[in-house]
Amino acid sequence: MPRFALRIEYDGGPFAGWQAQADLPSVQGAVERALAALDRGFAAGARIAAAGRTDAGVHATGQVAHADLVRDWDPFRLAQALNWHLKPAPVAILTAARAPDTFHARFSAIARHYLFRLLARRAPATHDRGLVWQVGQPLDVAAMRQGAAHLIGRHDFTTFRSSMCQSASPVKTLDRIAITAHAVPHGTEYRFALSARSFLHNQVRSIVGTLERVGAGAWPADRVAQALAACDRAACGPVCPPQGLYLTGVDYPDDPFGVSDE
Amino acid sequence: MPRFALRIEYDGGPFAGWQAQADLPSVQGAVERALAALDRGFAAGARIAAAGRTDAGVHATGQVAHADLVRDWDPFRLAQALNWHLKPAPVAILTAARAPDTFHARFSAIARHYLFRLLARRAPATHDRGLVWQVGQPLDVAAMRQGAAHLIGRHDFTTFRSSMCQSASPVKTLDRIAITAHAVPHGTEYRFALSARSFLHNQVRSIVGTLERVGAGAWPADRVAQALAACDRAACGPVCPPQGLYLTGVDYPDDPFGVSDE
Repeated sequence: MPRFALRIEYDGGPFAGWQAQADLPSVQGAVERALAALDRGFAAGARIAAAGRTDAGVHATGQVAHADLVRDWDPFRLAQALNWHLKPAPVAILTAARAPDTFHARFSAIARHYLFRLLARRAPATHDRGLVWQVGQPLDVAAMRQGAAHLIGRHDFTTFRSSMCQSASPVKTLDRIAITAHAVPHGTEYRFALSARSFLHNQVRSIVGTLERVGAGAWPADRVAQALAACDRAACGPVCPPQGLYLTGVDYPDDPFGVSDE
Repeated sequence: MPRFALRIEYDGGPFAGWQAQADLPSVQGAVERALAALDRGFAAGARIAAAGRTDAGVHATGQVAHADLVRDWDPFRLAQALNWHLKPAPVAILTAARAPDTFHARFSAIARHYLFRLLARRAPATHDRGLVWQVGQPLDVAAMRQGAAHLIGRHDFTTFRSSMCQSASPVKTLDRIAITAHAVPHGTEYRFALSARSFLHNQVRSIVGTLERVGAGAWPADRVAQALAACDRAACGPVCPPQGLYLTGVDYPDDPFGVSDE
């Protein structure tokens, strides 16, 4: 059975998350239903694997999943056909590609990239509602960068990990937190770009929620270092809501989508 | 009664347009209800006037309206209070300002600015759904600019005017059509920025729909000149849908919001 890799974009708002759950709408379920509708070999009940099991309300612009199909589809036509069957769900197959049988969307991944969008402005968001986390006051970017610097590298991230996290170890290597400020009409949007081989459950939202406290002046920047060293979930700042979070990309040693895909 | 000018942003999706209509949700109705809730002098049934009576589904990032209130509100507090009462409607008061009694949001306006967002990509829009008009194929920007050049200046715009248009004259002066292309993941967004003292009903959507035909190669650019000269609604290209259209700003000789408001 030929294996296909799918690059997927979605609005997480209407979904209970990526992962299929009984009686709840999931992105995985929507994609699996579309696959079953067009490829008879992809039986109802067959499962697809994804690089990141995003939570309820979390978005993606570059999720990656793989599926084994019976027909040897032209990848371009497969993406078009899946998009047709996915309507009207806010889920789009950006690209489909043939992948070797050894490719696994989750286990072959060597890096995952997330973006968190934080809007600071007085007036409530309208067009960006559900797509950003909003606060009322502007934040101190330099202080947030100072706080974030403590988190780069290999650490025990127990403080920044959901109590529900099923990862075997709380030790992860955080490769990058880049924080940028963008002027938007009547406010400022702060973007947090984080990269790691893999993340713990709620790690990005725990980190951004903590850095927001630093940016607001409620926490000194070095309290982030103390929180990390405590290895105690209670030392974490407030976990921020899911609607600002996007899985933007996944890296593979042999990228099935090629290098100049976009 | 002190007069206040309001700069308003909204997602037009859930509304039957700006203008209040019996039994239909309108942006005007939402703002009037919020005003009535906080200012006893603004009785139910009192009306506010706006610079542009946007159609169903059309958005605004810079609509301007005015209202006469009893209390001499601090403008900043007025905006905050209105935003509180507007929840959960996707309508935000960006700024409130005291205005002279001679100020009229509609009749004092000397220029109106619209933006149309057109997304060309294969995969359906997810996060931008309802915020752009989408087509599948990239467009020829140079050809669209060539077509648009025929429309600049003072003309009889009968061809580009809804048959429902109530304007006394079809003669308008179009000051600007700037067309830009922006690379977005897996596609291109074309932005059409149009400015005029005032527009006819459906004029922007008629113009953009016609220019899209030129950009797609279905119309030669000079057919736009012929369509304009025909002064015949039947000579217009297809009117494009409302969800890509935004009223972005309104100019006044004595701007009540001042010059450095943002």
